[in-house]
Formats: sequence, structure tokens, C-alpha cells
Amino acid sequence: MYDSVAVVGATGAVGTLILRLIEERKFPYKKMKLIASGRSAGKKIKLNGEEIVVEELKPEVFDGVQLVIASTPDDTARDFIPYAKERGCLIVDESGYWRMDPTVPLVIPEVNAEDIRKHHGLISSPNCSTTQMVVALKPLHDYGKVKRVIVSTYQATSGAGLAGTRDLVNGTKAFLEGKDYQMETFPYPIAFNCIPQIGSEKERGYTSEELKLLYETRKILGDDTIKVCPTAVRVPVSNCHSESITVETEKKITVEKARELFAAMPGVIVMDDLKAKNYPMPWKCHDTNEVYIGRIREDISAENSITFWCVSDNLRKGAATNAVQIAEWIQANL
Amino acid sequence: MYDSVAVVGATGAVGTLILRLIEERKFPYKKMKLIASGRSAGKKIKLNGEEIVVEELKPEVFDGVQLVIASTPDDTARDFIPYAKERGCLIVDESGYWRMDPTVPLVIPEVNAEDIRKHHGLISSPNCSTTQMVVALKPLHDYGKVKRVIVSTYQATSGAGLAGTRDLVNGTKAFLEGKDYQMETFPYPIAFNCIPQIGSEKERGYTSEELKLLYETRKILGDDTIKVCPTAVRVPVSNCHSESITVETEKKITVEKARELFAAMPGVIVMDDLKAKNYPMPWKCHDTNEVYIGRIREDISAENSITFWCVSDNLRKGAATNAVQIAEWIQANL
Repeated sequence: MYDSVAVVGATGAVGTLILRLIEERKFPYKKMKLIASGRSAGKKIKLNGEEIVVEELKPEVFDGVQLVIASTPDDTARDFIPYAKERGCLIVDESGYWRMDPTVPLVIPEVNAEDIRKHHGLISSPNCSTTQMVVALKPLHDYGKVKRVIVSTYQATSGAGLAGTRDLVNGTKAFLEGKDYQMETFPYPIAFNCIPQIGSEKERGYTSEELKLLYETRKILGDDTIKVCPTAVRVPVSNCHSESITVETEKKITVEKARELFAAMPGVIVMDDLKAKNYPMPWKCHDTNEVYIGRIREDISAENSITFWCVSDNLRKGAATNAVQIAEWIQANL
Repeated sequence: MYDSVAVVGATGAVGTLILRLIEERKFPYKKMKLIASGRSAGKKIKLNGEEIVVEELKPEVFDGVQLVIASTPDDTARDFIPYAKERGCLIVDESGYWRMDPTVPLVIPEVNAEDIRKHHGLISSPNCSTTQMVVALKPLHDYGKVKRVIVSTYQATSGAGLAGTRDLVNGTKAFLEGKDYQMETFPYPIAFNCIPQIGSEKERGYTSEELKLLYETRKILGDDTIKVCPTAVRVPVSNCHSESITVETEKKITVEKARELFAAMPGVIVMDDLKAKNYPMPWKCHDTNEVYIGRIREDISAENSITFWCVSDNLRKGAATNAVQIAEWIQANL
């Protein structure tokens, strides 16, 4: 049990949600520090009825802090995590910077909570688009061994932070009024458009976001033989990522078996009745903590392959909820 | 050369565009009839400077008409095409009703124009989501033989007709103003949402729209061994369908070769430079007649497999343009 807890990036899109989850889930702590960039320092935030003054991120602020939940840009995480670790903090980090470090466990509690025990002061929470896919893959992998995944994403603008949401909402308003709008974060208008690039160009024509779907999946499932063909696309949806996922397995998994495996997986809700028009949609899944699966079908183009549709709140299970779940596991087990 | 031409469904979303294309492309005719349902009969429409009174769809209206371009709901096409054929018309039909009839050629002029010669009075134009995919598949198939396609679509609301566009635009306005909106055509709100169902439930958990991507593809390419795993999704985009397509071929096709094959394919424009953020998007491709291909990559999950992103104006190449191109081919060759 760690009494002294800090949230770093407390004023961001994910940080704000982490605080809501701390209240909702009655996350245990005695002393809470809220930490952010100099820009937000001095702001007052109410948490569980207590007014807390946001402190500026710098080394001394971690003195006496035991457990940190952090959601910051990658370069901020690169800089502050070493000095927070030096001061003895155990850190749960939402950023992308440390995820592939071999000394850092990359954890989805429903999938590989026990990896937390191997930590050296830092545990990473996976990328939003990876988390929901791996929650779906886990029971299939355990039953039939996943060989290959083809995934196309339909990612919400909230994944690009508050500026992403502003670009969608204000850009859409401007478009409908026939006015110009200067994008803050996206390279092109996102209103009524799809942008087939998330992140920067990496190897062999794939983007950073796409390769996370390969490398993070392998690390979390502990299987470097899994192959992934990823396509990551930004769509004009405010919140909740959707994914069209096709999975080839060593052992055949029937639709009935897949439905049964998904239903038994913690953190998964199956919504799978096409006749009744029951399937996951961003509009329905917003502001919930689960991974939703529907449209489960046999892949009619291959043997031992199934295909399905997966939606999850990228700010919650894709970020804040997963980080808080890791911190809860730590509170309960370490 | 056919002098007496009629457009059926002249007041619909696709019909209106057919008339624009007839003007834009200087489509040859001496006498033009515009035909629609009783609701629109009597309306006056200007075409090439001539004011034409819309006539009601009924058998006698086809007397003396040689060539018909039609875009109507499936059940309208079911009913009127037999009596139009009886009166000696040659019909180019955009509807889904006759496409899989073995006596009816299903044609994309860049792909299989010669099939038009086998007609028995009726030629069908394929479904919008199929057309752009098959234009992309054709050069790959000719070079390396397509074995399997995995496709996830990002389909615009204009594919559901004028009511689809109203649901998107008015639904989005209402949402932004915090007001209620009663959907006309979609089963759920489409504003800032994705709906993983287009069409009705058919076999094995797939929808009618999805199975068109299988059966129409096989028919157009004349190869029943091609396998397709389709997922069709409606996204809040007003016009232009996008598709994430993975293609396994018998013979390996490198990225360079694929780019070369696409560039040489009539009707295709390659936009493929991730570094320069150059890739197809609905926003860019709207109101053009081509099929755009980008994000061309080797599929890192399989041998002899490539993956790419494909966008096209579903009302133009996906419907009106393709139908007019078929009619142009007929005018020039039959």
C-alpha cells in the first residue's frame, strides 16, 4: 500500500479523466499531489472534496511520493521519469516513451498483470489502439494461438488530446457555416474527412501508430512470432476508437467459440447480434471502461481465421482506466 | 450510335450527377427524356440549355427510346427494366437488383468493357464500394493473380442517397447545438459515430454490402477463386468512400511494382508519399472521377501480400461516372 500518490499531467485530457476515475473507483491514497507543466501550476483542482493546488513538474516535487500515475507527452516522460525514479517513486506511465524498454513491463491488467512484479520502478501502459486490440486477442491467443492479425483502425480525435477535439468540433462548426478554420494539430481538415496517417513515418512505409500495434502487441502477449498488418486512420469521431480486426490462429476458432471466449474475458462486453442491429459503436461505448466486441464472423477468405469489430473508449480503457487499473493492482498486491 | 436517350431516376442524388456528367463530358444524344417517380413528374430540369419536363416512370415512356441510363432503388429496377427491355431499350442500370444475373454483364469500363458486347439489353454498373476496389485490384490481378483480399471500408453517407447526407449534416448540426435529431435513413446517429452495418443481414453474419465486395468482384474479374474478407462501415464523411485493402497474390508484387502497376492503370491516380503527407482523403478526392491509391506498403504479416489505402468519389466513379462511361462505350462501339 502506497499512501503518497501523485498524478503527473493532471490538467490534460487523460489526466483529468484519471482524477475522475480516482473518485469513481475510490482509489486509495492518503496524500495526493497534482503535477503539471509550469503553464498549469497554481491552478486549483477539487479531488474527493479536497482542493489541491497544481504543482510544477520538477525533481523536488517527487520527494516523499511513493506512487506516480503519469500522462504526459513522450519527451516530458523521457525527461522526468529518471529523476522521479531516483527519488524512489514507482511510476505508472501512459506515454509512449518507455514502453519498448526491455526493463519496463508493458501491462494491461486483464492480460498480463503479473508482469508488474518485474518492474524496476516503472510500468508502462500501452497505446490506446493497442490496448483494446490486445484485450480482444488475449483469449483467442490462449485458446488457439494467434499467428497473424490484420487490423484497420477508425480512431477518434480525442486520441490527439484536447486540441484534437477542438479541431473536430470547431472545424466541423466552421465547415457547416462555410467559414475557414486553422487546424491546431491535424495536418488536414478532419471534419467529414478521414486521414490515413497517425504519428510519424517509421519503417517500410508504416507510421509510428501502426508499428505500436505490432511491437506492443508482441511484448504484452509475450510472443514475438505474432505478425500484424496494421493500418491506422483518423476519423471524424470525437471519442472511442473502432477497429476492424481479422485474426488467423493456429487452431480453428469457430464463431460460437470466439463469442464464448470473448464473453469470458474480463473487461470485455460482447454486443453481437446483427439481426437486432446490436454491435459496438463509439456513440454507445463513450465514457465506459470496457472493450466492446461485435460483428463476430468466420473469415470467409481463409481457414482458421475470424474477423470482428471492436470499440473502446480510447481515453478510458485506452489510457486513463488502464493506468489506474495498474495502480490499483499495485496498491492491492505490492 | 443511339440518338434517343433517357435517364431514369433523374432527380435523385446519382441521377442529378448523371445529368452533370452528360453536360461535362459532352455525352452525345439527339433526344433526351428525363424520367422519375410520380412525385417528381412535371418538374423542369435544364440540360445543355434545354428545359426538359420530367416524365413519370411507366411503360409507354420508353417507346422510341434506344439507350437508358438508370439509377433507382432496387425494387424500382426490378419492376421497370423488363418492360423497358421489351420496348427495345438498351439499359445501363446502377441499381443492385440485376447485377448478379448471369445474363447481365457487370461492367467497369477500365476493367472489363468487352463484357458489354455479351449484353441481352441490360448492363449493370457495380456497387460503389466494389467499383473502386476492383479498379485497384485489376492490375494486381493481371500481374500476380489475386488470391485473397481483406477489405475494411470507411463509407460516406452520400452512399445512402440524399437522406444520408441530410442525416449527417442536420444530425451533426443538432448534436453541436445539443438538440435532438430524428434520423431519416440510418438506424443510429451518424454524427461523430461509426456504424458497422451497411445493408441487411445476409449469409454467415455478413451484410448485403459486404457480400457485394465478394460476389461482384468475382464476376467483374471473371475469377471465382478470389477470396474476400469484407467489413463495411459507415463513417461520418459526407462524400467519397475510403478502403483499407490488403491483397495476397500468387506471384509476389513489390511496393515499387505495385506503384508502377497502379500508375499505369487507366482511371487510377497514385498519391503515395507518406513523408510529404501525400495520400488520398475524401476531402481531396471529392467531385473527381478517378480512383486514388496511396499508403502502398508491403504487408509485414505475410509473404506475397501488399496493403494500401484507396479513396474514390462514390457518387461519381462509384455510380454516375461509371454508368455514363458504360453508356459512352456503347455509343462509341455498338
